[in-house]
Amino acid sequence: MTGKGGLTQQHADRILAGRTVEDAAARLEPDCADLPEIPIGSAKVNRERASRIWDQMGGDPQWREILLDRSADELECYQGNIENAIGVMRMPIGLAGPLRVNGLSAKGDYPIPLATTEAALVASYHRGCRVLTMAGGASAMVLYESIARAPAFAFETASDACRFVVWALAQFDVFREKVAATTSHGKLIDVGSTVEGNHVYLNFEYTTGDASGQNMVTLATQAVCDYILEASPVLPVRHYVESNLSGDKKASARAFSTARGKKVTADARLPAELVEKYLHTTPQAMRDYWQMSAIGGVLSGTIGIQGHFANGLAALYLATGQDVACVAESATGVTRFEVTEEGDLYASVTLPGIMVGTVGGGTGLPTQKACLELMGLYGDGKSRALAEVCAGLLLAGELSIIAALSAGHFSRAHRKLARTRKTDP
Amino acid sequence: MTGKGGLTQQHADRILAGRTVEDAAARLEPDCADLPEIPIGSAKVNRERASRIWDQMGGDPQWREILLDRSADELECYQGNIENAIGVMRMPIGLAGPLRVNGLSAKGDYPIPLATTEAALVASYHRGCRVLTMAGGASAMVLYESIARAPAFAFETASDACRFVVWALAQFDVFREKVAATTSHGKLIDVGSTVEGNHVYLNFEYTTGDASGQNMVTLATQAVCDYILEASPVLPVRHYVESNLSGDKKASARAFSTARGKKVTADARLPAELVEKYLHTTPQAMRDYWQMSAIGGVLSGTIGIQGHFANGLAALYLATGQDVACVAESATGVTRFEVTEEGDLYASVTLPGIMVGTVGGGTGLPTQKACLELMGLYGDGKSRALAEVCAGLLLAGELSIIAALSAGHFSRAHRKLARTRKTDP
Amino acid sequence: MTGKGGLTQQHADRILAGRTVEDAAARLEPDCADLPEIPIGSAKVNRERASRIWDQMGGDPQWREILLDRSADELECYQGNIENAIGVMRMPIGLAGPLRVNGLSAKGDYPIPLATTEAALVASYHRGCRVLTMAGGASAMVLYESIARAPAFAFETASDACRFVVWALAQFDVFREKVAATTSHGKLIDVGSTVEGNHVYLNFEYTTGDASGQNMVTLATQAVCDYILEASPVLPVRHYVESNLSGDKKASARAFSTARGKKVTADARLPAELVEKYLHTTPQAMRDYWQMSAIGGVLSGTIGIQGHFANGLAALYLATGQDVACVAESATGVTRFEVTEEGDLYASVTLPGIMVGTVGGGTGLPTQKACLELMGLYGDGKSRALAEVCAGLLLAGELSIIAALSAGHFSRAHRKLARTRKTDP
Amino acid sequence: MTGKGGLTQQHADRILAGRTVEDAAARLEPDCADLPEIPIGSAKVNRERASRIWDQMGGDPQWREILLDRSADELECYQGNIENAIGVMRMPIGLAGPLRVNGLSAKGDYPIPLATTEAALVASYHRGCRVLTMAGGASAMVLYESIARAPAFAFETASDACRFVVWALAQFDVFREKVAATTSHGKLIDVGSTVEGNHVYLNFEYTTGDASGQNMVTLATQAVCDYILEASPVLPVRHYVESNLSGDKKASARAFSTARGKKVTADARLPAELVEKYLHTTPQAMRDYWQMSAIGGVLSGTIGIQGHFANGLAALYLATGQDVACVAESATGVTRFEVTEEGDLYASVTLPGIMVGTVGGGTGLPTQKACLELMGLYGDGKSRALAEVCAGLLLAGELSIIAALSAGHFSRAHRKLARTRKTDP
Repeated sequence: MTGKGGLTQQHADRILAGRTVEDAAARLEPDCADLPEIPIGSAKVNRERASRIWDQMGGDPQWREILLDRSADELECYQGNIENAIGVMRMPIGLAGPLRVNGLSAKGDYPIPLATTEAALVASYHRGCRVLTMAGGASAMVLYESIARAPAFAFETASDACRFVVWALAQFDVFREKVAATTSHGKLIDVGSTVEGNHVYLNFEYTTGDASGQNMVTLATQAVCDYILEASPVLPVRHYVESNLSGDKKASARAFSTARGKKVTADARLPAELVEKYLHTTPQAMRDYWQMSAIGGVLSGTIGIQGHFANGLAALYLATGQDVACVAESATGVTRFEVTEEGDLYASVTLPGIMVGTVGGGTGLPTQKACLELMGLYGDGKSRALAEVCAGLLLAGELSIIAALSAGHFSRAHRKLARTRKTDP
Repeated sequence: MTGKGGLTQQHADRILAGRTVEDAAARLEPDCADLPEIPIGSAKVNRERASRIWDQMGGDPQWREILLDRSADELECYQGNIENAIGVMRMPIGLAGPLRVNGLSAKGDYPIPLATTEAALVASYHRGCRVLTMAGGASAMVLYESIARAPAFAFETASDACRFVVWALAQFDVFREKVAATTSHGKLIDVGSTVEGNHVYLNFEYTTGDASGQNMVTLATQAVCDYILEASPVLPVRHYVESNLSGDKKASARAFSTARGKKVTADARLPAELVEKYLHTTPQAMRDYWQMSAIGGVLSGTIGIQGHFANGLAALYLATGQDVACVAESATGVTRFEVTEEGDLYASVTLPGIMVGTVGGGTGLPTQKACLELMGLYGDGKSRALAEVCAGLLLAGELSIIAALSAGHFSRAHRKLARTRKTDP
Repeated sequence: MTGKGGLTQQHADRILAGRTVEDAAARLEPDCADLPEIPIGSAKVNRERASRIWDQMGGDPQWREILLDRSADELECYQGNIENAIGVMRMPIGLAGPLRVNGLSAKGDYPIPLATTEAALVASYHRGCRVLTMAGGASAMVLYESIARAPAFAFETASDACRFVVWALAQFDVFREKVAATTSHGKLIDVGSTVEGNHVYLNFEYTTGDASGQNMVTLATQAVCDYILEASPVLPVRHYVESNLSGDKKASARAFSTARGKKVTADARLPAELVEKYLHTTPQAMRDYWQMSAIGGVLSGTIGIQGHFANGLAALYLATGQDVACVAESATGVTRFEVTEEGDLYASVTLPGIMVGTVGGGTGLPTQKACLELMGLYGDGKSRALAEVCAGLLLAGELSIIAALSAGHFSRAHRKLARTRKTDP
Repeated sequence: MTGKGGLTQQHADRILAGRTVEDAAARLEPDCADLPEIPIGSAKVNRERASRIWDQMGGDPQWREILLDRSADELECYQGNIENAIGVMRMPIGLAGPLRVNGLSAKGDYPIPLATTEAALVASYHRGCRVLTMAGGASAMVLYESIARAPAFAFETASDACRFVVWALAQFDVFREKVAATTSHGKLIDVGSTVEGNHVYLNFEYTTGDASGQNMVTLATQAVCDYILEASPVLPVRHYVESNLSGDKKASARAFSTARGKKVTADARLPAELVEKYLHTTPQAMRDYWQMSAIGGVLSGTIGIQGHFANGLAALYLATGQDVACVAESATGVTRFEVTEEGDLYASVTLPGIMVGTVGGGTGLPTQKACLELMGLYGDGKSRALAEVCAGLLLAGELSIIAALSAGHFSRAHRKLARTRKTDP
């Protein structure tokens, strides 16, 4: 009997999806016939350029109407944030909160705009904000701030690598000066090193004021690399301004040992009666679920243990003009729920890598700036507060989803809220 | 001398950010005075409801004008995709490609709409699409498809857990029937089990047609759980429809062993002259960088090794109405670059968890549907093709960024393209 | 002020360890002068051969006396387990238990021999065995058994890889026959596949009777690879019998999704009065510590969460002739402590990769066989029982260390037990 | 058709191993009948005590003869390294090398004793030592040294945690004094902090002279904790001397960012003709295998990428009296192979956590000390050299196994060397 043989056959069938293997293999071959014309890209953002791209592309004019024509008047404001612009994407914003945050920087009741197309997301975070605020709000603090670039240098031998790293580690003051010449907002605060055989990775940590700062630190690190090439007693065979050690745009275990952007923790204590009234469950039931889900996370090999940080992060990043690709690196951390001696619920979230700015990037665009202004968090001196509000929001989200799962209401909420949609098949 | 003492002091100062420790600690205390009024949430999406929220919230009318008034006419189409709607977020879409994809499902030249506010992103992916297409396109294949829900069951003892798991593993046919009663699109294809002491995690794998399917599998799993509670010879003390083992909304090592959504691989062979002409570097230089960056990723503790999957994924997910929070789970995988015996460049990407649908979710919203239509990928029977195009796009993105980093052009591109922005500080 | 500069300078100084950088770099240079004579290795194990190696090596005869002469009479029994034999290593064995184990295979009270040179290790495990047995013993069950080999095959293109994998997945029955021709103990039970660009990794899962089986599955997989090279419609450019995907000799997240060797869980419920009497702490205090340490583990990026599995595993593996290098892969898993509603302690351990055999390898050597016989676990039909006893032992070890840490006795035990040593500086 | 249902049924059958589910469940129940007598443990190590344990245990006298009687004369020398001693474990030692090491501390040709019962292990490392030495030896350098203890402190609120951490970070000088009062060998070199909600983890990094030092840093940290409890302005609700954040006895991603014990790198350049002559393969073939296996490791979710560090580490740790349980934490790191422009092989290994001492622990026991003396590495001032030799050995092991796998000789070596065994079934 060969049950498994039958199964692996099923797997093969599924790959082929109804084709013969010859047909499948043939489809995968590169094909240089009739290559399409590929337009030269353009950084110029305006209606005329966009129209030209549409003309080249052809296709049904109704999509052009939706994407371009309806938003054509504001297209130019995206200059410098996009290339090859063909129009404007729109998605709805819902409001969660207000959420009370008691932070080192944030202090007050914050309305929280969330951009998403997922049913139940805003409702769930709103519910969490509500109970958290009723309990006196989320305490929140930024624990560390830094953004890294990790240039790398390849040598012939470990002996050369040794000579280089010893020299480089003595250059901290000079490196700071080189950085200072490229930016007034960014400051070099630390230099680390990793020697791997004949390769040397340096890790430069910066603060970047209230900008998210990825580009700022790239330019600063380039300046340091230029100096290294001029001054180092032993020249690298190859070098790169970024070696993928910095954790840029990806979840990494390293973030817990250092930080990516802002490391933030937020916590709250919820009286049992609030849990029952607003969340329809009990502190003990929530803790029981938390524990089982924490181990579920561990068994699946996640970095950190948490429920759905990504949902709130993505929605807040989108609404406020952050780089939403950073959700990949930011959506890690630790959620912890306990029952206190008094029978109340203690809940906390800790995130090692919240990547937010309140100036630069997409923060100055029309709807994005409007959302930041709504929260009172646009401009200089606000990014730490935004990170603390962000942590408070994620705490609210963990409270809400864990309540729903522990009370057995999780599937119900999704059924109810998505049911009103008109566009579904 | 105690340099480190001085440093840890600096760290403490940075946490306090200029406050005394008493002041800092006081700010963090919960505060139940003057609690704000928190509006009841609403799933109804229209101008009137939105206006009511704005009225409650108060604040400068200019933000309402930007967020609500300018898009008020299309607000109702978001019914079922948002709650507490207050308006519409807008971000620009740029076009990359067309990209030639030779896939098991995708076949042809695809224009690729990318929604982002990050300068240089579209330009970089466009450059990659160009060279990839000139080389005959990306070969791409979906290797596996499944979406999981992992309910969990707690018992008194491991003995009870043993009795339960043996019973449950014999119920596969019944579980399939229960699933079939809740959905015609979703099919249960496998059931796995993990016993951890007196806890049992089941892992249900589904296919969900062309929908991304997270809600579909939640409802189906709920139905199975309902059956388990009726029929199991040993009842759990507690149970949950999802235990955090499924990897939903987070990067997990487990995805490589199974899949989340669609597991896809894409590859291409680029003649050296194309690399030189379009990317201004050489196959050897790109491979050298790839190797150093692969180890950089390993040293930082990432899941998989890759460059910037998150950038392209987030931009394509946004443009096409996917759940952008899934970037957290999708942006893992493996990029590999080699030099062939002929001196050409071989490049591949493999992603275990692309989460895309071409029906349902946000795919039917105006601009999102328009983008899918532009690609010819809206509706039934298209989701595998979309996943293959997605993998091809990410291959293009890896080619472009690795070319820039290996040629020393990385910082230059960012400086040039972001410089044209008007909104920067 | 540049505190950090001073620090990185300190780091450089520490690397140099008092040398100049020139001197340091010079020491690292390869040196082909006066190359030593390197004897041809020998698999022959006897006193004469050993003496010859000692003669070549020279050196103080007292070490030869200790290593070789005292054990020369039994040297030949190590034939086939060592090469270039020069003598015999000795380390003490202490006895923990007896430990009561209520397992699917193990059943009874097991004395547990532990080989170690670490003070307090045996005492700590013994204490845990004592309380666990007083509570009625550890329940334990083997959940899955398999040992994998993962050959890999490189092709020119993903198209060829597709053709190959579809073919290979249809060969399960033939693969089984090829395996059966090489071994009567080993059975092929599953074949999985991973396609990564133009590379295909196959994953062969075997059962291997009561042997640990790493060599058996290597030979079996080699036979399958030989068949593949003869019969495959598309030949790989390169192929390897093992590709490092199987997790051999290293901790991997993948083990939780499949298994390495034997996946085992063990649990127990300890009445509060036993905890107080034997462990001098309370269930609540132990759970509190467990939770904090679980998150400590998560923050440090371990695979699974546990205390000190490695201690008990290494000591038991050594005493019973297992491959102690497998501690690297076996010492992962999950420990969980809870307080029951009745106020008692619930405790469990789960290990995805216990690698034990009761025949073959080092199990037949004199002291190793004696230890297995002492436990009643030597020979055919015993390996599952040994794995369950192993899990029970590790549960005892977690109970003991967590008790010590939660009661504040951890440092005391180490101080007291190591203090009696005579050999310390 | 329900292939999978059949399979899950098979899985259930395999758990039951031929029993009914009722029988299986019954076996797992705790059983307090006829509890065995459990002897009080004893730290006294001598023949009389051991005999008493044997008398209590009963059983066949032949095992006592093998374990105790043959080694009874040296039993007392293990006083302080074992409890409940019942005898002595013996395993063979084979010699690899001599290996030439060009290190910052190690310099010369080292014979390397390896204790193992695994056929082919010594032969494989010996082969690697041979080719490495012929190429001029391994360059090796200790990059960082530290051993950590991570006490943890729980507070009521994040506000209290904030007050505590700010205070603690200002106490570095006092902490150093407290440490200095407990040890003259250990020095506190850094203090880090992680705040997770209302929990604070401190991370104390020490140097410990030439001892491995785990106990030393435990006692030192206990002294600091005692001081904290006296002096802190805000008292923790609970505290622990170790919180599982330090990575003790387990593989952790964190080790790459800091170190566990000694961080060491070793490399070499092997002329193509040496590779062909001694390893029967080519630099290109070895690099090709390395790359495929590196990605195999990534896909399986290991920490770092390497072949079989655990084999050499365990064998050397055992022979030289190191704590072999530390293999769990030490056997991670990065192996890298490249082909140089000249067509030679470049190879390196980097390990973040080699845990070795040359004084204390098991290093002074008879055979262990003899092995260290054989290498010239016993006593003060030798531990950095031992770590460098260790890295060189592992480089040799990676060369040998990768050569075997790339040349297709892997299964052959195992077949040949294990075949001479007499004890196999």
